[in-house]
Amino acid sequence: MGQRLEALNEHLTRVIDLRRATSVLDWDQEVYMPEEGAEPRSQAQATLTTMAHEIFTSDTTRSLLEAAEAEVADLDFDSNEASTVRVARRHFDQETKLPTAFVTRESKAISRSFMAWRKAREADNFSAFEPHLREVVELQTEKASYLGYTDHPYDALLQQFEPGMTTAQIETLFGDLKAGLVPLVKEIAARPSVDDSFLSLPYDTQKQWDFTLLLLRGIGYDFRRGRQDRAAHPFTTQFGNTDVRVTTRTHETMPQSAIFSTVHEGGHALYELGSPDKFERTLLAGGSTLGLHESQSRLWENQVARSLPFWHYYYPILQAFFPQQLGNVSMTTFHRAINKVEPSLIRVEADEVTYNLHIFVRFELEKSLLTGELKVSEVPEAWNARYKEYLGITPPSDADGCLQDVHWSHGILGYFPTYTLGNLMSAQIYARALQEIPGLEEGYSRGECAPLLNWLREHIHKHGSKFTGPELMQREFGTQISAQPLLAYLRAKYSELYDL
Amino acid sequence: MGQRLEALNEHLTRVIDLRRATSVLDWDQEVYMPEEGAEPRSQAQATLTTMAHEIFTSDTTRSLLEAAEAEVADLDFDSNEASTVRVARRHFDQETKLPTAFVTRESKAISRSFMAWRKAREADNFSAFEPHLREVVELQTEKASYLGYTDHPYDALLQQFEPGMTTAQIETLFGDLKAGLVPLVKEIAARPSVDDSFLSLPYDTQKQWDFTLLLLRGIGYDFRRGRQDRAAHPFTTQFGNTDVRVTTRTHETMPQSAIFSTVHEGGHALYELGSPDKFERTLLAGGSTLGLHESQSRLWENQVARSLPFWHYYYPILQAFFPQQLGNVSMTTFHRAINKVEPSLIRVEADEVTYNLHIFVRFELEKSLLTGELKVSEVPEAWNARYKEYLGITPPSDADGCLQDVHWSHGILGYFPTYTLGNLMSAQIYARALQEIPGLEEGYSRGECAPLLNWLREHIHKHGSKFTGPELMQREFGTQISAQPLLAYLRAKYSELYDL
Repeated sequence: MGQRLEALNEHLTRVIDLRRATSVLDWDQEVYMPEEGAEPRSQAQATLTTMAHEIFTSDTTRSLLEAAEAEVADLDFDSNEASTVRVARRHFDQETKLPTAFVTRESKAISRSFMAWRKAREADNFSAFEPHLREVVELQTEKASYLGYTDHPYDALLQQFEPGMTTAQIETLFGDLKAGLVPLVKEIAARPSVDDSFLSLPYDTQKQWDFTLLLLRGIGYDFRRGRQDRAAHPFTTQFGNTDVRVTTRTHETMPQSAIFSTVHEGGHALYELGSPDKFERTLLAGGSTLGLHESQSRLWENQVARSLPFWHYYYPILQAFFPQQLGNVSMTTFHRAINKVEPSLIRVEADEVTYNLHIFVRFELEKSLLTGELKVSEVPEAWNARYKEYLGITPPSDADGCLQDVHWSHGILGYFPTYTLGNLMSAQIYARALQEIPGLEEGYSRGECAPLLNWLREHIHKHGSKFTGPELMQREFGTQISAQPLLAYLRAKYSELYDL
Repeated sequence: MGQRLEALNEHLTRVIDLRRATSVLDWDQEVYMPEEGAEPRSQAQATLTTMAHEIFTSDTTRSLLEAAEAEVADLDFDSNEASTVRVARRHFDQETKLPTAFVTRESKAISRSFMAWRKAREADNFSAFEPHLREVVELQTEKASYLGYTDHPYDALLQQFEPGMTTAQIETLFGDLKAGLVPLVKEIAARPSVDDSFLSLPYDTQKQWDFTLLLLRGIGYDFRRGRQDRAAHPFTTQFGNTDVRVTTRTHETMPQSAIFSTVHEGGHALYELGSPDKFERTLLAGGSTLGLHESQSRLWENQVARSLPFWHYYYPILQAFFPQQLGNVSMTTFHRAINKVEPSLIRVEADEVTYNLHIFVRFELEKSLLTGELKVSEVPEAWNARYKEYLGITPPSDADGCLQDVHWSHGILGYFPTYTLGNLMSAQIYARALQEIPGLEEGYSRGECAPLLNWLREHIHKHGSKFTGPELMQREFGTQISAQPLLAYLRAKYSELYDL
């Protein structure tokens, strides 16, 4: 490594350490902090975040970055050196383009809007949230103008979460996906409903917990480098590739919630744990874009843990944990139940087939809010009309409609598409894994997940956060992100399950 | 508050937030960090500690401090303003007197010496630790010369932990105490031994845990502002007065370990929880010197939780938790057992009476190591000779002798006396509480500890870290630190228990 890049990396270790420390504070806040501990905690979080921002956007960083850019100018795009500088530049530009006064204004507005949203959702009162959502949309429009864009203000916001993708590309992908999904949902809806009533019996939550630990070990999660705790909203967090922690929640009468949330977070964690040692404490460490991250969590959750071979191995174990509830339920019945397709109101509870329809609604509304085509006051109506169109159901209330997600109240627009991008890439990646790993799914029925993990290490994880989604898909699989593999996977799987 | 002091306080909030964040990282490391997480954790800790040190010792701090000193020059010594500046000056001088090169050298030597000590203790091999201890003594001698002293190099080191106390004062106090303790120990040793065999039966550790939670609530610990977790070496930590956490450990065949460690840490925690809101996020927040802190933990552990009235209330509850082990053991027998006096080798397991003898040994050796009167190679012999003299027993090995404590391996000299100072002050404070609170101990037998806590809030906790030990004792009780109250307390208590 050249000495200028080395100087940049050395300088940025402080930023990285401050961010890691902040992540520990965040984790603790969600998992163990006593209820009255919020005030000193938010002070410390704000101080560390501000200090990291100050160092990262300082003139020192600017000159070290410029020097490093000159130094790596002739190096290959894919080299670690050029990639470090490229990623640093992307983050530097994003963090410096926003005027400090704007960031302060935004952060205050978001605090207000989050509190208003919580109350509005509880009271099912959209109009109490409306002025705040209007402010959020105005601020995000302003933010887009600072960040800059050519075609659509949505591009600017999207870049924060999914660099390398444009709004136009997503429109095409979502159009393809919608064209395949809508008829599939209709065909499934025409079939007899699946019985999953046994999933509503009481399941001892401690036993559920023990089973999720066993699942984590089974997919290759390393408890010497992580741990699982309980959290109201499950998440994964990391402080280096030797300390990657997951969380889950247990509901007594919904055992599938803990099971799939654990495997989902486990998928995120395996990605972070697979980040190469050589990237540690640099900007290349850890998983890449949100879409790529979601591709890993969704792949383990859906393609693996909702497959029949996986339960060949795990279902007898689950039955041994819960003989009263599952002793007389066949594996096939159980497998059908955990894959039941049913248009529903709430995104986070949606099945694999209908999930992306929820995303389309949000993507379309966000775009037209930014261009001004849609007024904030029209959101509930527009939301409900699309749910009727895509899912065939109408939310009985805004609380179960346009007020359900936290994102907008946090000032986040441009984020939702990354969920579907993750689903698309998970199917593309998994299709390739099936081709390349002999007897992959047969292995699951013997509890063997290591071949898949090793293959993901080799094709995805080893790149850390070097590449964007499209860059990685191109390099590893010679392909672009596309809707066909997901559609093919869903059609094959559900044709069998629903006898289409 | 004057605007210059306000500017100083505002400037130091970053230091305080960085330290609080570091405390969260430390807590997590002891309690929940996965085994492989050490490397990124130590990097983040080092970065945050360095940044706090840089800001605190910066020229900015120096000029803000000087300006604030001028501003508060005419204010009363006891005012919050003058106290803030006085405490800031003390810390500033301590942190700036040490050359950076020395701090780096010391920190490296300590890492080596800690690792060497662990191995040496395990192998019972003092000579493996000897060169490291020699280096520690040399470094601490050098440190004393940087920190400065008039009479004895020990004064310089002591100031770090117990500002306001001198070596000469401690010698006098310890002399008085020794004169009273040695004959008391001999008188007790001449009496029939106490039967505590029932404390070696197996006690379910989960039930022990549940009982300690009940004790914490009982003494007034507020779980909305704290929590208890397990740790190998129990400690208390705080991130502001709304998040003060304790830890404990359970041993299956030693239930008194968890019980008294919990109440001890609970005492530390009540002190921190009682720090006034107006001091939050300033240098006056939290408990004061180590001796004052120990006075609070020891008071709750010994004067309260080893008293008979306390067990009037809690013993029936403990019996209900453990009917098989304690159902046939009378309260009097139990109370004698938890107050059994027996000269022993290990400080942390010592009873109330012999505990301070362990401290004398360390204090005397440390002093003569610093003056060069004692050579490091002579430590084991000198240690054993003093144990023979004060406690009447000779360690069979250095592992159970001069290698038992971690402090020296961490480069800490001048710390041990604060344990005994805490014991002395706890007795002085408690004697006053008994005078001032009608029916204090009678209240324990009904589970009432609130009168004591409120009284401590009013006389000790409300001062935060404004005063040193001698300053506080003078202001609140018009007295100096003295050995007589502890001796009187011990003689009265053990005369009754041992029928002297």
